[in-house]
Amino acid sequence: MVPKLKIGIVGYGNLGQGVKKSIMQNEDMELIAVFTRRDPAAMKAEDGIRFEHISAAETYKGQIDVMILCGGSATDLPEQTPYMASMFNTVDSFDTHAKIPEFFNTVDAVASQAGVVSVISTGWDPGLFSMNRMLAEAILPVGQNFTFWGKGVSQGHSDAIRRVPGVKAGVQYTIPVESVIERIRAGETPQLETREKHKRDCYVVAEEGADKAEIEKAIVTMPNYFADYDTTVAFITEEQLKAEHSGMPHGGFVIRSGITGENTKQIIEFGLKLESNPEFTASVLTAYARAAARLSKEGAVGAKTVFDIPLAYLSPKSGDQLRKELL
Amino acid sequence: MVPKLKIGIVGYGNLGQGVKKSIMQNEDMELIAVFTRRDPAAMKAEDGIRFEHISAAETYKGQIDVMILCGGSATDLPEQTPYMASMFNTVDSFDTHAKIPEFFNTVDAVASQAGVVSVISTGWDPGLFSMNRMLAEAILPVGQNFTFWGKGVSQGHSDAIRRVPGVKAGVQYTIPVESVIERIRAGETPQLETREKHKRDCYVVAEEGADKAEIEKAIVTMPNYFADYDTTVAFITEEQLKAEHSGMPHGGFVIRSGITGENTKQIIEFGLKLESNPEFTASVLTAYARAAARLSKEGAVGAKTVFDIPLAYLSPKSGDQLRKELL
Repeated sequence: MVPKLKIGIVGYGNLGQGVKKSIMQNEDMELIAVFTRRDPAAMKAEDGIRFEHISAAETYKGQIDVMILCGGSATDLPEQTPYMASMFNTVDSFDTHAKIPEFFNTVDAVASQAGVVSVISTGWDPGLFSMNRMLAEAILPVGQNFTFWGKGVSQGHSDAIRRVPGVKAGVQYTIPVESVIERIRAGETPQLETREKHKRDCYVVAEEGADKAEIEKAIVTMPNYFADYDTTVAFITEEQLKAEHSGMPHGGFVIRSGITGENTKQIIEFGLKLESNPEFTASVLTAYARAAARLSKEGAVGAKTVFDIPLAYLSPKSGDQLRKELL
Repeated sequence: MVPKLKIGIVGYGNLGQGVKKSIMQNEDMELIAVFTRRDPAAMKAEDGIRFEHISAAETYKGQIDVMILCGGSATDLPEQTPYMASMFNTVDSFDTHAKIPEFFNTVDAVASQAGVVSVISTGWDPGLFSMNRMLAEAILPVGQNFTFWGKGVSQGHSDAIRRVPGVKAGVQYTIPVESVIERIRAGETPQLETREKHKRDCYVVAEEGADKAEIEKAIVTMPNYFADYDTTVAFITEEQLKAEHSGMPHGGFVIRSGITGENTKQIIEFGLKLESNPEFTASVLTAYARAAARLSKEGAVGAKTVFDIPLAYLSPKSGDQLRKELL
């Protein structure tokens, strides 16, 4: 019998908990330990899960095949990925697009030196969406890519709402403009302003006695976040927020509209409709953990992205099986 | 300056001509020669294209980086792929799904012996659809895959119509049942009969004096091809057939409806909407020719499928560029 892949999780927020659930769906994997910055003794007991302080990670060297890093891109991963990659194969979801090249180089140096594989920036964007942008461009070099996000909760924009004075709580949905998507599916390649691609719907709980008109104005005119979009603000109660807006749905589309031959239109589209963004992202990370372990076993080292890894490495099935069942 | 990739085309029907057009869209490639079983001297002159009889291929050994094989799967490729793979890196679109494992083994043996790379069964199904079936299953191991084809012309079914006595010409469209796709997109995972997934619309030109009722009956009751489907037959004139049904559109969808965590629905969808099936398939083959050359340069040998090849190998862009522009 093939031994199970030994997985560690670093960080136990929504994403880390999603990875735990994903590992339970994959029979070739087992969760060895969850590493957290919190006090492990204070973590809510869960059947069969061992919590460790993050500083204990090094004592697991040789006992964990892949560490799945579930921290945030702003401050956690820039520190945690290089640190963990000095000891373990890693997978992360670093998603600050502009800083990916620099992050890649940093992690590549550490991972190469340590002789491990670090898969960076997986998930769905960056991740599956990137793969589809790249693949579609390679197949249809004459054409245009369009990426739409939503309908889904944007954490950054929800945080921005909550910083507005008088706001007690709030959630922001990014919503792709369906009519534009229909035009692209019909073969148009429009030049689109920011406002034409997405709109933003905000659900806000105001503090007792707050000036709702002021709050709305502060939100819709907020530079970078809302000013360039058609933004709606609806005031709701705390109960409504909890009952109707506590999920973390997301999704979106990557569409390439291309031309072959003498003006033959060809359209490639990839889309996601997710009831839980963190659980789905976690499932992508888990599949890439399998790939990281296999690459490492074959002697690969350094940083890798979704562009560098054959799809077969994501599956527990053999090449024979894949060709027979899925090709 | 990097030398251009030297491409040969074997077979010059719709697919081969599509590859020629695709090469013209890719600045890192040049077409060296088209190999045909017809008399090369009798081929319609085209600017800058060298036609050769297929038996002259061996005189091009060392002058062509990749041969793109554009023959059919029934009789051409089972013979041509092993023959060409004894001398050149190859790419083909072998699409008889049930025979892929056997074809892979045959080609793998020849290509390994010859020290070349043979990418088999590319295109969109097998090909891009297979990649999405595999990827989606690896990410969402608990779930169900659905593949729909169309709206598009099915060559095999059009041929079947034309064999019916009294039929002068005809075209068959495979059409996915939209209402079922909507149910799947909404999260249902129905068990579907053949009839519920696709319908078949036939446009038929009858011979002078033929019994149209008999023709219609012969078509809709034809076993394997039409009996299991809701099939419509419309009689049209030869002029209408030429004016309205001479294109080769196609497309379809691969949808995985999966579950994460405690019953969280997650849907991954990939779709194509193609004005020309052969030109699009050709563009996929061309991108995989780039991958075959690069794999070969790195020392790889043997048969490969879309599951085995990192996506980056399909693009002319460097890893740095890909990470910066598309990740």
